[in-house]
Amino acid sequence: MDLIQMGKNAQIAANQISQLSTVKKNQALQVMAEALLEHSDEILQANETDMNHATENGVESVMLDRLKLTRERIEAMSDGLLQIATLADPIGEEIKGWKTEDDLKISQVRVPIGVIGMIFEARPNVTVDAAGLTFKSGNAVILRGGKEALHSNVVLAGIMRKALSEHEFPKNAIQMVDDPSHDIANQLMQLTDYLDVLIPRGSAKFIKMVIQNAKVPVIETGAGNCHVYVDESADLQKAVDIVVNAKTQRPSVCNAMEKLVVNSAIASEFLPRVEKALNPYNVDLRGDERAVAILPNINSATDDDWGTEYNDYIMAIKVVDDIDSAIEHINKYNTKHSEAIITNNYQHSQQFTNQIDAAVVYVNASTRFTDGFKFGFGAEIGISTQKLHARGPMGLEALTSTKYIVNGDGQIRK
Amino acid sequence: MDLIQMGKNAQIAANQISQLSTVKKNQALQVMAEALLEHSDEILQANETDMNHATENGVESVMLDRLKLTRERIEAMSDGLLQIATLADPIGEEIKGWKTEDDLKISQVRVPIGVIGMIFEARPNVTVDAAGLTFKSGNAVILRGGKEALHSNVVLAGIMRKALSEHEFPKNAIQMVDDPSHDIANQLMQLTDYLDVLIPRGSAKFIKMVIQNAKVPVIETGAGNCHVYVDESADLQKAVDIVVNAKTQRPSVCNAMEKLVVNSAIASEFLPRVEKALNPYNVDLRGDERAVAILPNINSATDDDWGTEYNDYIMAIKVVDDIDSAIEHINKYNTKHSEAIITNNYQHSQQFTNQIDAAVVYVNASTRFTDGFKFGFGAEIGISTQKLHARGPMGLEALTSTKYIVNGDGQIRK
Repeated sequence: MDLIQMGKNAQIAANQISQLSTVKKNQALQVMAEALLEHSDEILQANETDMNHATENGVESVMLDRLKLTRERIEAMSDGLLQIATLADPIGEEIKGWKTEDDLKISQVRVPIGVIGMIFEARPNVTVDAAGLTFKSGNAVILRGGKEALHSNVVLAGIMRKALSEHEFPKNAIQMVDDPSHDIANQLMQLTDYLDVLIPRGSAKFIKMVIQNAKVPVIETGAGNCHVYVDESADLQKAVDIVVNAKTQRPSVCNAMEKLVVNSAIASEFLPRVEKALNPYNVDLRGDERAVAILPNINSATDDDWGTEYNDYIMAIKVVDDIDSAIEHINKYNTKHSEAIITNNYQHSQQFTNQIDAAVVYVNASTRFTDGFKFGFGAEIGISTQKLHARGPMGLEALTSTKYIVNGDGQIRK
Repeated sequence: MDLIQMGKNAQIAANQISQLSTVKKNQALQVMAEALLEHSDEILQANETDMNHATENGVESVMLDRLKLTRERIEAMSDGLLQIATLADPIGEEIKGWKTEDDLKISQVRVPIGVIGMIFEARPNVTVDAAGLTFKSGNAVILRGGKEALHSNVVLAGIMRKALSEHEFPKNAIQMVDDPSHDIANQLMQLTDYLDVLIPRGSAKFIKMVIQNAKVPVIETGAGNCHVYVDESADLQKAVDIVVNAKTQRPSVCNAMEKLVVNSAIASEFLPRVEKALNPYNVDLRGDERAVAILPNINSATDDDWGTEYNDYIMAIKVVDDIDSAIEHINKYNTKHSEAIITNNYQHSQQFTNQIDAAVVYVNASTRFTDGFKFGFGAEIGISTQKLHARGPMGLEALTSTKYIVNGDGQIRK
């Protein structure tokens, strides 16, 4: 595995696809989509090899389900590429334009980043998804998937590369690292001469490891210890509905709610209603002292609870006396992902959105809306919890940079 | 020196100044500016200590001049703060706003980044400049200057902190690391729990060292191996003027021109004119074989020349047969900073601006305009040569992040 050669190949391909028209890029996505369907048998066969290895190695059933490909899942991957083809092309957009005191006309235009590294765990559909999104945004990608999905990933990338090649597109726009060793992963994280950015996708632990080890700039897609604060002025029925939705609609994901913060003025009325509404979902409720005084059947929260992302049917409850205390508590323990206030008080809605430090701050809505598709981006690379380059749900724009084009008429600097 | 305590202080201060109104922030800049003038004697005394140490240690005279403070230079620093007060406040700007299919109203608003680390070499005026720019953009800053300017930096920061304190602004918005050891610098580069970003300012070598060692995300302000390509259709007089300006107006800076690329169709007419125009500046010209054939008195360029940033009165000349070769050469050797084409051919102007990979691409203007002030930003943090977060001249906006504010009416996710 010669990563340096892959890096050089990627730079050449990046240069070529940065110049492709939108129509051409969409044609490429279409031939890739068709090729996946044509070669379904080959994909299923490679996936069977992966599934057999995984079963032999005692991989747990949740992981096996993520790894498994079926005809339906291959169709979904293929449809995903066609869907990306329908999205607006971010490249070439003029973001700003002005004339300077020296009569220079400056345009800031959107351009591809160049070469993107993606490092991810189990699910082989990420191979197709990442290839599609990076291609549409004019970038070359070097992919490195989990070892469980190695055969599936190599075959998927190979089919897309062949399809590109056959239609005179640069196949090195998509390259897959086929060596599953940690050593190669580490080398990829140090490939500063060739990679412009590295995007890890996987568990919080995996992403943290990449951040700690990478020299290439990383876009961090992180954890979500999300709070809902129910203000004394809240519409309590809406608050109950939002808490139930944010906690139980899909508890395993990063935008699910983990903590309920309640104003003491309404806690004794509100908490029993929430407890009852959550009852069918068997949520393990853990309260601070005042919450337990109102709901005697629930467990006591420990100090560890406030900073923990459960990703499960667990919710801790904190009772506070005013919005200042709520904001202080949330800013202390949150992971800067998504936070919500339920209120009918205008000043409180303003104070909360101004003072909470998070990628997305909601008034009267479920935290579950933090999502590239729900935001209307038509795609999602991940949800950034860092503050540089991109913050919050990332669509195609997060895979772009900018360039200043300056048109003059012989100007020199005095 | 307890960096962790400094980090905690900075986070608290960042939280406070993120909520200050524009008027309040400008008042703070004004009291800082006044305090510098009032305490000029104290500053000059500290600076004398630094100058004496530096002289004893044999620091060279160019560095001594950068280190030296005078009453005029203190006034200039003070005026710089007042100038920053006049700039538009980037914080609170709504960048985008829309309504989703779920009837959620989403606004993307500009917010401060949080805590910024700045690590820099000799010049003490960077202390004041960085403090002003980070304060105006609502961020707290932890500064670490070069050891030569230690006393000056500590006194400058102390005066600004005292002024903030006396007017009930959080003094920890500005903190100066007063331990000049490498060990502390390294610790600062690893302070991921408290620093949101690290901005190094200094030589290319220094910046490279920071990028190699930092775990905190870095904004790279880098080297400039800038080219001017003179097309066969160029107005040759404009081309001569631009080359002379880009090469000689201030050769030590990153946006100065280092390489001349000339189309062979006009080389024999153009090169003697350039040689003559550069004659008064004693520029060391180094040509490829074809350039030397036209200008027999110049030196031969070696392979090392094409990738070297001279920052001096040296210029290498390459003759090419067409624009494709010019673009290929430039994209191979440039540092993605600033590149110019001199042409009257419309297609060539389009091809060059589309295909050259650089932060700023010029048509018929000097590369020396790559500058936050010349771009009209009213300030300059540096010139980014990376592709993430900010690219090209960075004004106050480069010190900001964004936050999504979502207003709903009880929406839950289906």
